[in-house]
Amino acid sequence: MKTLLSDVGEDALLDRFTRWFPCGGALRVGPGDDCAVVSGHRDDVLLKTDALVEGIHFEANEDSIRVGHKAVARVFSDIASMGGTPCHLLVTLALPIGTRLDWLEGFYRGVQRLCAIHLCRIAGGELSRLPGGSAAVISVAATGRVAAGQAILRSNGKPGDVLAVTGCLGGAVTSGHHLDFLPRLAEGQWLAREEGVHAMMDISDGLARDLPRLARASQCSFQINGGALPLRPGCDAAAAIGDGEDYELLVAIHPRTWKNLHRAWKEAFPDVMLTAIGQLLPPARSVAPILRGGWDHFDPFA
Amino acid sequence: MKTLLSDVGEDALLDRFTRWFPCGGALRVGPGDDCAVVSGHRDDVLLKTDALVEGIHFEANEDSIRVGHKAVARVFSDIASMGGTPCHLLVTLALPIGTRLDWLEGFYRGVQRLCAIHLCRIAGGELSRLPGGSAAVISVAATGRVAAGQAILRSNGKPGDVLAVTGCLGGAVTSGHHLDFLPRLAEGQWLAREEGVHAMMDISDGLARDLPRLARASQCSFQINGGALPLRPGCDAAAAIGDGEDYELLVAIHPRTWKNLHRAWKEAFPDVMLTAIGQLLPPARSVAPILRGGWDHFDPFA
Repeated sequence: MKTLLSDVGEDALLDRFTRWFPCGGALRVGPGDDCAVVSGHRDDVLLKTDALVEGIHFEANEDSIRVGHKAVARVFSDIASMGGTPCHLLVTLALPIGTRLDWLEGFYRGVQRLCAIHLCRIAGGELSRLPGGSAAVISVAATGRVAAGQAILRSNGKPGDVLAVTGCLGGAVTSGHHLDFLPRLAEGQWLAREEGVHAMMDISDGLARDLPRLARASQCSFQINGGALPLRPGCDAAAAIGDGEDYELLVAIHPRTWKNLHRAWKEAFPDVMLTAIGQLLPPARSVAPILRGGWDHFDPFA
Repeated sequence: MKTLLSDVGEDALLDRFTRWFPCGGALRVGPGDDCAVVSGHRDDVLLKTDALVEGIHFEANEDSIRVGHKAVARVFSDIASMGGTPCHLLVTLALPIGTRLDWLEGFYRGVQRLCAIHLCRIAGGELSRLPGGSAAVISVAATGRVAAGQAILRSNGKPGDVLAVTGCLGGAVTSGHHLDFLPRLAEGQWLAREEGVHAMMDISDGLARDLPRLARASQCSFQINGGALPLRPGCDAAAAIGDGEDYELLVAIHPRTWKNLHRAWKEAFPDVMLTAIGQLLPPARSVAPILRGGWDHFDPFA
């Protein structure tokens, strides 16, 4: 019998508990997508929270400016994947009582710098002390906005859609990319305005975990072309699929609009690749390859 | 030189860093009050985050339904103190990988039950695993709403205002009150609509810490009448001042409206006391007694 968290994978846990928390009222999209969507007056409101744990998402000796950057950039990446703009942040720190003040200063500097770039304000936060020996935990909650009804969900992909990713994949931890990536906010907003963009999510746990999530939410299967994957220098296809922490956008695009969209993309973002890597398929044709790798927060063998 | 978090008190830390994160744009009230206030269309939006740490705010062997209840009730208490109504929650759990599934189920049940009472929806959340030996950390972020411009801040108290508290104080941990209290949402909303209610906050760290915060934010000094404090059975004045975790409302009320307000209160809330405990004073007459006790999250001797 499954009695411990470690007995159950992250997706199974989410399935189990998100049913307890249905949408309704102003809550148009609840737990399960990159952000929640709350109907608003002119704009819809996006809500997102994300946590970093010392020893898992960053090391104790890491430059805390980069840790602060990552804590915010991860949340912004989720807002980007809905086509949204970040507005306000709440930053919670649970820190061992022996943490150095200059660590904290660096952390807030990293937070502040990325917020300033995106005109996002810190609205509040929380500082809690932890007993000695505990791992530091950082939790960032954010509000964002997107034009009413225009948020791109992960659940709206259609069979036949081109699957495309921004940037390149793999080796995000060894290259340091996971600590200094720039969230694809401008790219996400641009994509959300384009015709034929059906579904979008950010790749945080690795394509191997995240692509099946998009496909499942869209009630599709999928195929990917391993040879087409945009590889970070020094990475192979297995790394691109399994490493995780890429924080690139995975997009499902109507095949009829893909060519024009791709042409326009190259003019809008000449320095950022947008690469077709595969296709969504009807659910019946369940030929999805088993992807190996990716990151499960409750899989002790991940 | 002060180099560690433990060298600096919580208020000094907040002073140090809140300056980095000023208000502006739609952010009318930022870090430092019970909630942040964002200007909205018809309603203003309240934003709040709060964390619970195992071993500090709850014990590992505690019934997790009560832990879930407390995690949400603390945030609702802050929304209550602005006169607001909770809308949506984001619930983050960082848990040791050996946590039992039934603990998690109980926790969500406690969350769900209190949310259902107040028609508040869970919009999302996060589950992260912790290395063995780490304390569990729970972080709850919430949005709320309040009629535009009607949020009651802690900074608007005036010299001469009557200081009043709801309910009774002291012994919240030993009595178990800290795990099953009902946030004063109806009371806070009622008070916010009354004339002459200048300032409000909730008492979470104890009157000894929280009253000076309200007075300082309002640029006042204060006096309290120790004999007037509403004591929980079995508690003395020192406990009422210093114990903390009361989650009652502390209110500054114009002296001319106090009598009528108090009469109306007794009709509206016959089962809840509202007790005058002292007075705000001009800043020059700095006769504020030194209050002993209360809870500092970074004071190792607290």
